[in-house]
Amino acid sequence: MEPSFIKELQTIVGEQYTLSDRESLAVYGYDSTPEIESLPGAVVLPATAEDVSRILRLCHDAGVSVTPRGSGTNLSGGSLSVNAGVVMQTSRLNRIIEVDEENLTATVEPGVVTSALHREVESRSLFYPPDPGSMNISTMGGNVAENSGGLRGLKYGVTADYVMGLETVLANGDLLRTGGKVVKDVAGYSLNPLLVSSEGTLGFFTGITVKLIPKPQGKITMLAHFPVLQDAALAVSAIIAAKVIPATLEFLDKVTIKCVEDYAHVGLPLNVDAVLLIEVDGHPAVIAEEAAAVAEICKKYRCSFFQTAQNADEALNLAAARRTALSALARLKPTTILEDATVPRSCIAPMLKVIQEAAAKYNVTIGTFGHAGDGNLHPTCLTDERDQDEIRRAHAAFAEIFDVAIAMGGTITGEHGVGIAKKKYLPRLVGESGIRVMRGIKQAFDPKGILNPGKVF
Amino acid sequence: MEPSFIKELQTIVGEQYTLSDRESLAVYGYDSTPEIESLPGAVVLPATAEDVSRILRLCHDAGVSVTPRGSGTNLSGGSLSVNAGVVMQTSRLNRIIEVDEENLTATVEPGVVTSALHREVESRSLFYPPDPGSMNISTMGGNVAENSGGLRGLKYGVTADYVMGLETVLANGDLLRTGGKVVKDVAGYSLNPLLVSSEGTLGFFTGITVKLIPKPQGKITMLAHFPVLQDAALAVSAIIAAKVIPATLEFLDKVTIKCVEDYAHVGLPLNVDAVLLIEVDGHPAVIAEEAAAVAEICKKYRCSFFQTAQNADEALNLAAARRTALSALARLKPTTILEDATVPRSCIAPMLKVIQEAAAKYNVTIGTFGHAGDGNLHPTCLTDERDQDEIRRAHAAFAEIFDVAIAMGGTITGEHGVGIAKKKYLPRLVGESGIRVMRGIKQAFDPKGILNPGKVF
Repeated sequence: MEPSFIKELQTIVGEQYTLSDRESLAVYGYDSTPEIESLPGAVVLPATAEDVSRILRLCHDAGVSVTPRGSGTNLSGGSLSVNAGVVMQTSRLNRIIEVDEENLTATVEPGVVTSALHREVESRSLFYPPDPGSMNISTMGGNVAENSGGLRGLKYGVTADYVMGLETVLANGDLLRTGGKVVKDVAGYSLNPLLVSSEGTLGFFTGITVKLIPKPQGKITMLAHFPVLQDAALAVSAIIAAKVIPATLEFLDKVTIKCVEDYAHVGLPLNVDAVLLIEVDGHPAVIAEEAAAVAEICKKYRCSFFQTAQNADEALNLAAARRTALSALARLKPTTILEDATVPRSCIAPMLKVIQEAAAKYNVTIGTFGHAGDGNLHPTCLTDERDQDEIRRAHAAFAEIFDVAIAMGGTITGEHGVGIAKKKYLPRLVGESGIRVMRGIKQAFDPKGILNPGKVF
Repeated sequence: MEPSFIKELQTIVGEQYTLSDRESLAVYGYDSTPEIESLPGAVVLPATAEDVSRILRLCHDAGVSVTPRGSGTNLSGGSLSVNAGVVMQTSRLNRIIEVDEENLTATVEPGVVTSALHREVESRSLFYPPDPGSMNISTMGGNVAENSGGLRGLKYGVTADYVMGLETVLANGDLLRTGGKVVKDVAGYSLNPLLVSSEGTLGFFTGITVKLIPKPQGKITMLAHFPVLQDAALAVSAIIAAKVIPATLEFLDKVTIKCVEDYAHVGLPLNVDAVLLIEVDGHPAVIAEEAAAVAEICKKYRCSFFQTAQNADEALNLAAARRTALSALARLKPTTILEDATVPRSCIAPMLKVIQEAAAKYNVTIGTFGHAGDGNLHPTCLTDERDQDEIRRAHAAFAEIFDVAIAMGGTITGEHGVGIAKKKYLPRLVGESGIRVMRGIKQAFDPKGILNPGKVF
């Protein structure tokens, strides 16, 4: 990047917050996506919306690309600059601006860490449900840009369900305010949900207002072991059919169970096909009934073991099996390809079968865990980037898995975004009309195409 | 409209379903919006998505505009053709295609009446929450296009919160499928919520998949009279602050109370400033606690009377006061201008004051009722189209009300859409950037501008 351009960036945010030496850039040359690396030309750390606007105006005029970045937990390469442009990082925009207890909203800057918001609102008996796996490091800006899900998605929905208002700086530096603290707003097109999950390609968020709900009064955490995979899937369906909507209804397969047990020693059995982690939350009288229904259903579907946490520590211990799944799997081999093919929940059982068959056919190790209740599975391939043949086979297996997910009425990505990693699958899912419309929308927001180019399509 | 063009429409749907005589067209020359009338050139009634696609392709090629229309309950002129184009009506697309109890979804055609869907899913102990005031005549297609709200919006959200999948025919006749039965989907831009509330300007829906939830087990309906308006507003805030989220938290002011009592004789007092209708729903143990909290709060804020319905009939009777509000007000004068200025719920009390002051200043009669819990009020001006001076004063009063709503962080329309009626207010709310982006989105979906022109912007 031209030294003169870097100087201009420095005049906006200062030298200290404009990184361009090779070592600093290296840190921003990767995110949590395997196999993809790309060095930016410079990194800037704005402190205000005004900074963001000036930086974007400068880059827009110069035709330099800008890639927004939070903590770099992106799993589809979305936070990488593909053309040595500017990465604009949100860590200095990290204030919780307001928790409005009367309107049940919180307003934050994009760099606020998700779990910091959880703590702040829970201290006031309020609740911000989205809880992506990376919530202890991921930022709200990234959560909004990717429409992050999480373990509580089944009952509480995803980030999009909570975003009420956005302050966004557009590609040309203009400020756009959409939504706010009103529960109902139909004035013009719904730009909020469009900006949510736009993967940094339509604007840079400088303010985020989210809806809060009262904190559930209680929670019951349960764990069930199933010797037969199919029985676990049947139990999931039966729980929903019984009109019980657990906050969390998570699944671990045999490969994952073994890795978790090796890693965390939480007492998981090595001789079962599947484990379900189930949490119901809400009013004590309700969750007592729901937990009883869950226990009965799991027994009906031949679980070999059923445990209800007796206190908060036990609950944490049971949940740890699921929360550590990814870390545990990641230890086994140098490269972890974590996917998020998603299907209607009624297709969980056949989808699990397809994943196992694809792993066998291509001779790769795939552990599967994830959100059984909402059909959002995480088949995770444990491989090694340096073994090009195995990598090729892994991708072939995933291509089959995605094809089946689409055929089942599912999607190629439930949580992680398209980014760079899934671009080639998107046209298959949304068709030519879908791609044409999406490109037109991009054109409407960013005619020069400077915002996070090379992503989504 | 050219007879040759009408002939071409007839070849698609048949003569019987192509209306072009003056008497038939007159029926489609108005909707539920006062002061706006506009005759279409022809009306077509397609029976299949294929019909819709062929009609749109024909009109697109000929440069003839197409306005989608359901039951014509639109309150912003959105279902009127402004340039004597084609109105495409959904009454023959009226099948409930599927209720999927395993995935908790229902799939319908756009002409299905909202309350017909309610009955169908409730017979299976499932629940589709959105309940716009017009639900006994309004259609699902219209509800989706307008993102309809309703009395249960506070707890359950609006139509957008339930739309999971859409099958949409684009302006050029191409089919676009977005979303589906997956709870999590982040593949590309979120087109579903953008199509929702696009007021018929981006596409014509031929299939709608909505999320269902388990039907609440119980409901308690309560009514409270408040001699002092401010006390009612304080009670609303205190209920939410107590972490009770009623399914319904509705408000009637003095003007409305008098009209309702004259009309329906439900026993409302004529000497109070405000009535609140409150419904809590859910598990019996929970609603018993919530109802007790609501009663205590209403008494604390000096309600003069508090009634809890003892059975379903009594509940219906209490709710009737609110459900008949619009009809009762509409009887008083020939023209009813029903507005939906919406503010953050903390601003309900000052907003009510502003409405009263505007009515006094411009010497017009405004009755206000609506969704106090979500800040969505319906100030309703009772006037007479033939009295041009009064109409002018009514619009001046509403202009002030909208200005204040915007200044309070609210919106010009919470439920009814921009349509024709509120176009002039939209730029003030969303700014130049907002309008520019919306126009660009319209361009992406409908470059020739044939779909419902003259609406929104």
